[in-house]
Amino acid sequence: MIFLSKKVPEVAARRLPRYYRYLGDLLQNGVTRISSAALSEKMKVTASQIRQDLNLFGGFGQRGYGYDVAELHKSIGEILGLNNHYTIVIIGGGNVGKAIANYAGFKKRGFDIIAVFDCNREIIGKDINGVSIYDIADLESFCEKNHPAIAAVAVPKSAALSLVGVMDRCGFKGIWNFSHAEIECSAPVESVHMSDSLMTLSYRIDNMDD
Amino acid sequence: MIFLSKKVPEVAARRLPRYYRYLGDLLQNGVTRISSAALSEKMKVTASQIRQDLNLFGGFGQRGYGYDVAELHKSIGEILGLNNHYTIVIIGGGNVGKAIANYAGFKKRGFDIIAVFDCNREIIGKDINGVSIYDIADLESFCEKNHPAIAAVAVPKSAALSLVGVMDRCGFKGIWNFSHAEIECSAPVESVHMSDSLMTLSYRIDNMDD
Repeated sequence: MIFLSKKVPEVAARRLPRYYRYLGDLLQNGVTRISSAALSEKMKVTASQIRQDLNLFGGFGQRGYGYDVAELHKSIGEILGLNNHYTIVIIGGGNVGKAIANYAGFKKRGFDIIAVFDCNREIIGKDINGVSIYDIADLESFCEKNHPAIAAVAVPKSAALSLVGVMDRCGFKGIWNFSHAEIECSAPVESVHMSDSLMTLSYRIDNMDD
Repeated sequence: MIFLSKKVPEVAARRLPRYYRYLGDLLQNGVTRISSAALSEKMKVTASQIRQDLNLFGGFGQRGYGYDVAELHKSIGEILGLNNHYTIVIIGGGNVGKAIANYAGFKKRGFDIIAVFDCNREIIGKDINGVSIYDIADLESFCEKNHPAIAAVAVPKSAALSLVGVMDRCGFKGIWNFSHAEIECSAPVESVHMSDSLMTLSYRIDNMDD
């Protein structure tokens, strides 16, 4: 049972997926408990930062014992809403759309990809990893019937911008944006800007000696 | 000419790619100058944050005039090291590798993709968007001759982990990691963890009313 006593700052919330991944790795390796010091060493985050973050969610650690890995993993999963089993439609059946549809890890984390939409007649009617590809023109009617929670946007920038109105009408709870467009929607938008991370890497290479 | 008078905090440095993208959009739309207030409105960052960030890099704004878009875009590009024309090899010719090789925007930003490596005999010898696919066994000898700056890692987690030793010997200046592995290397590593952003989106959907 989790009691959220305080409002969680966004920066702390953004660290949760990484905790979740690390704890999942530990579980897979048969680790049942871990101290904040050991978790700190593994994650390259200070132990006090870890304690502070996890305290925000009710404080799962016990002095002298550390954290129960399975319990903490489960609790963070709940906080992240992974129990909601959100459905996803992918908009765009190109390389990025295919990469998303083919990654088995999302299903494991409670996300179910139920359809891909594209405008390319050559792929409509086919499937990616067992998920059917539909005509993008049918997106709105599909959503009226099936109420998918999340749209993964994997089309070029101009196509993404032209679809904003339709996506708003589809009533998605969240937009997972891989396009190079800044999408403004009534739902929360999380963007994966590949080129931003490449530019950050470039900056870090250039400033290695700072 | 840019004079870096102060050490730039990492959080500020991480905002630079976004400034660079926005300013590029403005340039394309024929905007020649912009106030910090207008940039703030567009980027959903406070104007004082923008002034503070840009002051770190020498302060390009002029009171009552605002920022010269072309000059600021160029300067931020220099700060990001985009003038270095880094070469990239892609490790993994699957969907993610293809998506990277096919995105024209990287070339425009000074990154040159020179080779793809894979272990799949069926694709070795072919090409993606004009870039040849080589046998992963030849990665080290290729790097000895061509000294690529960056490795884009687009293989499954286990493959990525098994390649860490080879990658270290290849002398990359930076690792751009798309795998679900945490890669530890002597060079800086920038990771694009797709599933982390999906979990963050899930959290935000779940906490919309907070």
